[in-house]
Amino acid sequence: MSMAGLVSSASASAPRCDHTQAWAALHGHHQAHGRSLDLREAFARDPQRFARFWLQAPELHADLSKNHWDVATQRFLLDLARECQLEARRDALLAGAPVNHTEGRAVLHTALRAPRGLGPFSAEVHAVLDEMLAFAEKVRAQAGQPYTDIVNIGIGGSDLGPAMAVTALEPFAHPGLRSHFVSNVDGHDLTATLRHLKPSSTLFIIASKTFTTQETMANAMAARAWFDAGMPAGADRSRHFVGVTTNLKAAADFGILTTFGFWDWVGGRYSLWSAIGLPIAVAIGAEGFRALLAGAHAMDQHFAQTPLEANLPVQLGLLDVWYRNFHGYSSRSVAPYHQGLKRLPAYLQQLEMESNGKSVDLQGEALPFGTSPVVWGEPGTNGQHAYFQMLHQGTDVVPVEFIAVKRPLHGLADQHQKLLANCLAQSQALMLGKTAEQAAGEHAPTASPQIDRAQLARHRSFPGNRPSTTLVMEALTPRSLGALIALYEHRVFVSGALWGINSYDQWGVELGKALCAELLPRFAMAAQQSPGALEGLDTSTAGLLQHLSA
Amino acid sequence: MSMAGLVSSASASAPRCDHTQAWAALHGHHQAHGRSLDLREAFARDPQRFARFWLQAPELHADLSKNHWDVATQRFLLDLARECQLEARRDALLAGAPVNHTEGRAVLHTALRAPRGLGPFSAEVHAVLDEMLAFAEKVRAQAGQPYTDIVNIGIGGSDLGPAMAVTALEPFAHPGLRSHFVSNVDGHDLTATLRHLKPSSTLFIIASKTFTTQETMANAMAARAWFDAGMPAGADRSRHFVGVTTNLKAAADFGILTTFGFWDWVGGRYSLWSAIGLPIAVAIGAEGFRALLAGAHAMDQHFAQTPLEANLPVQLGLLDVWYRNFHGYSSRSVAPYHQGLKRLPAYLQQLEMESNGKSVDLQGEALPFGTSPVVWGEPGTNGQHAYFQMLHQGTDVVPVEFIAVKRPLHGLADQHQKLLANCLAQSQALMLGKTAEQAAGEHAPTASPQIDRAQLARHRSFPGNRPSTTLVMEALTPRSLGALIALYEHRVFVSGALWGINSYDQWGVELGKALCAELLPRFAMAAQQSPGALEGLDTSTAGLLQHLSA
Repeated sequence: MSMAGLVSSASASAPRCDHTQAWAALHGHHQAHGRSLDLREAFARDPQRFARFWLQAPELHADLSKNHWDVATQRFLLDLARECQLEARRDALLAGAPVNHTEGRAVLHTALRAPRGLGPFSAEVHAVLDEMLAFAEKVRAQAGQPYTDIVNIGIGGSDLGPAMAVTALEPFAHPGLRSHFVSNVDGHDLTATLRHLKPSSTLFIIASKTFTTQETMANAMAARAWFDAGMPAGADRSRHFVGVTTNLKAAADFGILTTFGFWDWVGGRYSLWSAIGLPIAVAIGAEGFRALLAGAHAMDQHFAQTPLEANLPVQLGLLDVWYRNFHGYSSRSVAPYHQGLKRLPAYLQQLEMESNGKSVDLQGEALPFGTSPVVWGEPGTNGQHAYFQMLHQGTDVVPVEFIAVKRPLHGLADQHQKLLANCLAQSQALMLGKTAEQAAGEHAPTASPQIDRAQLARHRSFPGNRPSTTLVMEALTPRSLGALIALYEHRVFVSGALWGINSYDQWGVELGKALCAELLPRFAMAAQQSPGALEGLDTSTAGLLQHLSA
Repeated sequence: MSMAGLVSSASASAPRCDHTQAWAALHGHHQAHGRSLDLREAFARDPQRFARFWLQAPELHADLSKNHWDVATQRFLLDLARECQLEARRDALLAGAPVNHTEGRAVLHTALRAPRGLGPFSAEVHAVLDEMLAFAEKVRAQAGQPYTDIVNIGIGGSDLGPAMAVTALEPFAHPGLRSHFVSNVDGHDLTATLRHLKPSSTLFIIASKTFTTQETMANAMAARAWFDAGMPAGADRSRHFVGVTTNLKAAADFGILTTFGFWDWVGGRYSLWSAIGLPIAVAIGAEGFRALLAGAHAMDQHFAQTPLEANLPVQLGLLDVWYRNFHGYSSRSVAPYHQGLKRLPAYLQQLEMESNGKSVDLQGEALPFGTSPVVWGEPGTNGQHAYFQMLHQGTDVVPVEFIAVKRPLHGLADQHQKLLANCLAQSQALMLGKTAEQAAGEHAPTASPQIDRAQLARHRSFPGNRPSTTLVMEALTPRSLGALIALYEHRVFVSGALWGINSYDQWGVELGKALCAELLPRFAMAAQQSPGALEGLDTSTAGLLQHLSA
C-alpha cells in the first residue's frame, strides 16, 4: 500500500475517541471513581503506587503517580488508544504518510534526527546537515575575528525553538559568540538588540521558509539598512547575512549568497532540527548539535517501539485527554526547575496550542469536546513567589508539570539542593494540602492578633489533592534536551490523534494575516483623512484605527 | 470612626457578590441574552456601540466594545458593584484601613505615589524616596567609573516589577549601565549573569524585606563570594552591595552599609513604587522614576473619583467577574503589542493570581464560585505565530487583552504601522470569524489538491464572536507605564472586592516553604543512605528524593 493509502486507511478506519466503547467506559469510570480519587488515600492504600507510575524513557524519568488516575483508569485509556488505532497512526506518521492531509504533506521531523542512512530522505537530510554544521564550525572558528554577535531573525518556529535551545544550552555555548533573537515586527525588538552591536562583527541569520514572512522581512531589511549605514561603501554584505529558506531567488535578491534549505514535510513548530537550528549549531557546535539530534532520535525509538503501557509520550498524551475531557481541566502549568528552561513554556505554547488548538476533526466535523488546553508557566522557584498561590489555594485545579534536573553544570551545589527540595516540596504540598485543624495548631508569625483563630485557620488551609507530574533529567545537556523536546512533540501527536484532529496544519493563523493586509493601507489613508479609510469596518476597528493613525 | 472600624463596617455589612439581587439578575440576564450575544450583530444593530464602550483614563484609552456584554449587562454589573458597596470599600482601601485583615495591615501602595504632603505616611514615604533617588543619581554619575553593571537580587515582588519596568523603559535607560535581575535559587541564574561581569564594576542590590528570603540570601551569599574572590583583599565591599530591606542588622552583618527601607503596608507584589524600585530609578533616573509615580497617582485619582460607569479599573474588574462567573472563562490572555512589555504577563500573573487566587471569603467561608483566572501571554506579533491558532480555532473561548502603543520611540515607522495593523487585525479576526461558505470561495495556496473542497472549507472556517479588549497608550513612557500598572492593581482590587476575598494576603505560599525546610536536610541524609532520610514520606516524594540524591 502507498503512503497515502496507508494514512487514509489509518485515519478513515480509526474511530474518533468519542465514538469508542472505551470513551463510554471512561465516562462511567470517571463518574464512579475517577472524580473522587483522593491522592493521599491512593498512596496510603497502595505501597506500589510510585513504582507503578514511575516510567523510564531515554534521558528521562517520569513520576506520574501524583495524578488523578489509577490502574483501572490507565487500562481504560489504553483501550481507548487501541480502539483509536494509535499504534497504526503512529507508524503511519513515522513512515512518512501524508498525515497533514489538508496540505497533503508528510510530517517527518523525526527524519531530521535519524542517523545517516536510516529512514526517509536520509541523503538530503544529511547533505544539508553536514553543510550547515560545517558552516557553523566555520563561524565558530571566526569568533572574535570578525564575529562576536549572531542575530537570528525569524518568528514562530523560526524563533522559539532555537531561542529556547540556545538559552537552555548556554553552558555549552562558545564563550566568544553572543546569540540574539529578533522576532517581533515591533521595531523595539530589533532596535534594542542592535543598539550594542557593530555591523562589522555581527552575523545575521534570516530564517523564513518562503522569504516573505512579513515580520521577518521587515526586520531583515531594517538590519540590512543598519549594516549598510554602519559599514564602508563596498563592504561585503554576504559575509554578514545568511539565509535559512527554500526561496533561493528572493534570498539572492536580498544579497544573501549562503543559504540552507529544508522541506515541506518540516512544519515550522517542528523545525529546530533542520537548518532552522543553525543558531543552535553556531552556539554549541557540530558535536553538540549532533548530540541534540541523537537525544531526540532515542526518544523517537522509544515512542516507536515501547509498548503503550510503558511508552512515556503515550502515557502523557492519554493523561492529557483524561484531564481535558473527563476532569475538565482547561490549562496545564509547566514549571521547569531550571532557569535555562525559562523559554520552554513559550516554546510549548506553540508546539501544543498551534498543533491541537483545533475544533474540527480530520473530516472537518465539529468536535463536541475540548482540545488543546492553555499551556503556561515560568521557571521554578520564581513561580512559587508569584502565581503558585493560585495553584495551591485558587478555585480551579491546574495540573502542574515539574521538571527537575539532577546534576547542575555550575559549582553552587548548596543552591542546587535547595532548588530540588523546593521542586519536591511543591508537588508534595499540592497533593497533601493542609486542613483547617492542622493550620489551627500552628503559629503564624504575620497573622493579625485580632483575627478569630478558627477563621484564620480557614484562610491558612489548603484543599490538597492537586495533581502533578514530575519529569526528571540527569543533567541538562544537548542530548537530554533533544529527548525532552521530542517527548513533547510525540505527546502532542498522541492527544491530537485521539481527538481525531490534524495536528500539523494551522489554518487559524490565516484570517488575521489577510485582515492585516487589508487594514495596513488604511493607516496611511486615515492619516491623510482620506474618506475611504474606514469604509466597511465595524465601528470598533474603525474607531481604533482612527485613534491610532491621528 | 477609626480606620479599623471603617473597614470592619465596610466588609461586615457589604454582601458577597453571590448574595446580592444583582447576582440573581445577572444570572437571568446571562440565560436570556448574555450567553447568546453575537458581537457582529451587536455592532450592526447599534452604530454607537464603539462610542458607548470607549473609555478614557489617564494615559490610556480602552475599547471595551468587542466584549460579550451590552448596556443592560453593564447596568446589572453596576448594580452588583453598588450592592457590594464597592465605593465604600475602595475608599477604605485608599484611606489606609487594614483591608488585609488576616495580617492586620493597611494596603497603601497608593501612598507611595502620592505627591509630597498628600495622603497617609507622606513624610516617611518622601524621606525614603528622596534618599533612594539621590542614591540612584549618585550611581548614575559613576556610570563607567566604577559601575557598568547593576545586578538586582530579589524574587517575586522584589524581581518581577522592577524587571518588567526596566525592560519596558529601556529606551529611557542610562546607556552606560546594564541592568540584570537574578531571582531563581537555581545557580544557573546567577552563574550565567556573572559570567560576563567584573566585580570591580558591578553594583549588587539585595532586595528582601526580611533579609531572610531563601532564594535571595543564597544568591546574595554566592555573589559576595564571587566578589571577594575576584577583588584584592581589603576591597571596599560596601561600595558594591546595597540593600532594600527593613532588617538593618542582618544587612549590616552581611556587609551592607547602605539600605533603604519600606513598610508593612507595602505588599511584595505592590512594591515597585517603594525602594524596591531602586533598579528602575538607577536605570531611568530620579526624574523618570517620579514620572512613573505621577502616572500611577493619576490613575489612583481616576479610580478614586470617577463615577463607576466611566471608571476604567472598575469596568475591567466587572467584566472580569462577568466572564469568570457567568461565561465561565477560566483564563485571560494578555497580548502587549510592544516588545518592551514582554515581561508584563509574568508580572500580571503575580499581581492577579497571587492576589485573587483564593477560595475563601473574608470570613474564611468556602466560595461557591471561581476566582482568579489563569493570566498568560506573550507579546504580539510573536503570539500570532504560536498560540493564536488556539485562540482563533480552539474549542475554548479565551478573552484577549490587546495593548497597542500609538507612537514608537524608534525610527522604524513602517514597522510600527505593520505592528498596529496586526494588533487591530487580530481583534477583528477574533470577532468576525469566517464561515465555511466564505472559506470555500477563497483560494488556499498550500491546500492539498486531493482534499474535498467542502471539507477543506470547514478546516479553514473560524467561529468568530470571540471577545477582546484593546488598551491604547500614546507612547510607552515612565508616566504611561505607571498608569498602566496602577490600572491593573485597581482592577484586581475590584474583582477581589466583589468576590469578597482578601486580595492582600498570600497564605498559599506558606505550605511549600515549610515542606521545603523539612525536605532539605533529607537530601544530605539520603546521599549518605541514612535510614531516616525517607521516613514518613509518601512513596512518590520518597522515590523522587532517592533518585535525585543518589
